[in-house]
Amino acid sequence: MERKKLYNVAVVGVTGAVGQKMLETLEKRDFPVGELRPLASARSVGHQVTFKGKTYTVQEAVPEAFAGIDFALFSAGGSVSEKLAPAAVERGAVVIDNTSAFRMLPEVPLVVPEVNAHMISQHSGIIANPNCSTIQMVVALKPIHDAYGIERIIVSTYQAVSGSGQAAIDELSEQTRAILDGQPAEPKVLPVKSLKKHYQIAFNAIPQIDVFEENGFTREEMKMVNETRKIFGDDSIQITSTCVRIPVFYGHSESVYVETRKPFDLTEVRSLLESASGVKVIDNPAEQTYPMAIDAAGQYDTYVGRIRRDLFHPRGLNMWIVSDNVLKGAALNAVQIAEHMVKSK
Amino acid sequence: MERKKLYNVAVVGVTGAVGQKMLETLEKRDFPVGELRPLASARSVGHQVTFKGKTYTVQEAVPEAFAGIDFALFSAGGSVSEKLAPAAVERGAVVIDNTSAFRMLPEVPLVVPEVNAHMISQHSGIIANPNCSTIQMVVALKPIHDAYGIERIIVSTYQAVSGSGQAAIDELSEQTRAILDGQPAEPKVLPVKSLKKHYQIAFNAIPQIDVFEENGFTREEMKMVNETRKIFGDDSIQITSTCVRIPVFYGHSESVYVETRKPFDLTEVRSLLESASGVKVIDNPAEQTYPMAIDAAGQYDTYVGRIRRDLFHPRGLNMWIVSDNVLKGAALNAVQIAEHMVKSK
Repeated sequence: MERKKLYNVAVVGVTGAVGQKMLETLEKRDFPVGELRPLASARSVGHQVTFKGKTYTVQEAVPEAFAGIDFALFSAGGSVSEKLAPAAVERGAVVIDNTSAFRMLPEVPLVVPEVNAHMISQHSGIIANPNCSTIQMVVALKPIHDAYGIERIIVSTYQAVSGSGQAAIDELSEQTRAILDGQPAEPKVLPVKSLKKHYQIAFNAIPQIDVFEENGFTREEMKMVNETRKIFGDDSIQITSTCVRIPVFYGHSESVYVETRKPFDLTEVRSLLESASGVKVIDNPAEQTYPMAIDAAGQYDTYVGRIRRDLFHPRGLNMWIVSDNVLKGAALNAVQIAEHMVKSK
Repeated sequence: MERKKLYNVAVVGVTGAVGQKMLETLEKRDFPVGELRPLASARSVGHQVTFKGKTYTVQEAVPEAFAGIDFALFSAGGSVSEKLAPAAVERGAVVIDNTSAFRMLPEVPLVVPEVNAHMISQHSGIIANPNCSTIQMVVALKPIHDAYGIERIIVSTYQAVSGSGQAAIDELSEQTRAILDGQPAEPKVLPVKSLKKHYQIAFNAIPQIDVFEENGFTREEMKMVNETRKIFGDDSIQITSTCVRIPVFYGHSESVYVETRKPFDLTEVRSLLESASGVKVIDNPAEQTYPMAIDAAGQYDTYVGRIRRDLFHPRGLNMWIVSDNVLKGAALNAVQIAEHMVKSK
């Protein structure tokens, strides 16, 4: 029997919420890891992480740390990727970047394997992982776009705090307890840590994710517009997005209205979704089954339910799309990209 | 000085979440109450409620209890209204009903005073209060409909548990604490108490409010469709609604996309909203101001923010509409209807 080829993998931002899930996912999916190199910023150096039962000490993410690395999975913020991804590429690594740093560059493939795996081969060192809210939407819309063409999308999101990292997870947990106990809890992280104002997320809904753009949309909302068009390779799709943070730990939910180009048959839509890669249909109103964040958390699939024809528009379709934002929305998608590259080698 | 005329007021379902707020609102707005008669089902008889510093003992809601009553505010469930509202009307009371029992009957005005106060005079004993999620939406859309005409609405809601009553409020609170403590907490109330399956609301989003209809929409979603059309008196408005329960105690939020008939000017839209009755515009992205449930809770106004022109559709407009679902969405709207009747007497 031929010996399986192994790959040296660096995870940058390994102590963060996504970095941790990248390690877990590499292990659970038995990715052929040769050497694992857990990297992070200087302040996390010396921390320990566990991978396949072995303890590793976190090293500083500096250019030299990428020597001999085959795959470098980045999830340590845009500025870290901007600084270090080119250094990793120079040393021969393929970078799979979970930040928004390179996503919209024409030479960087923006990949969701179920949707546009064919773009992977066109990389020149860096492959970008889309934003979490985009990934689950395009996974669910792919079979519909293929069959009927998508003319427009109107989406409102219900996003988990884990999308803002471990600090936001801790904030929701501590703040919720404080409020139940009648204690004060000063918000410090959400909606955007670096901005001036922070708001209570416990028992609240915050209609801001990321900073505002000039056009009145947030950057998160514009990511859904621009990334979806790039992934589908179709700049004629009209997209309106409203992104909202709600007090959920894991799992983004999305209320998605779609208008198709060609007329659709609802039974066919269901069967297309049922056989789509990465999609699980959970949709039986009579039995009160529909996707929910708490059920999607920890799962790899994108769950789709509440599938119903619009009451007025003949090509209008409504859906409720839920997925684990840290898994399919980040860590899993990055590992899947690496798996595709390994398979095609 | 002429002595102010006083009115005898019955509140049916006075021990419930809405009933309590009806009492509070009557007191805070100094409604000219002569006799107050707090009514509820047999199992609440003997409970005590407070109104203007005086303690009242809850009496049983039976036909005879409405003798001498001028205004009967009902919020004890549809079946109670169906049984007792006619009995109250027979005894000379005007019924303002917060349930869905009579809303769609042609002879029953469905009233949001800021929108269609003129319908009040057409009642024949019963005036219906619309559903909470409808009320705040039509208050915010009224000036836009008047100025440009509304062609279609696509709305996704983020609804507070108080919309399901005190038991749901208690469930969110107790369940949240249990989960934080790592204890089990069996859901018993949400999404719909009378149905077979109940789901965790803490740290989750449930895409079901009320029961499912044959067309795949829930009854709550269909209320938004049918009630909005009736209130605006315009059956040509196309409405798509997705109603979702989230872990918030008070305050419904709504992501609303509107297409107008005539072209609109965004600056004019803002100024129309700013001068609209019952509306407060909170919308300054540069200062991170937008409406949030925790700020709207306890307030009478409907808050509107995130006002922005659609990126693609020339007559597309996006908004984020938030209001206290138990106040403007129920108790306040009912009291306002009574106030209008008193003023026009």
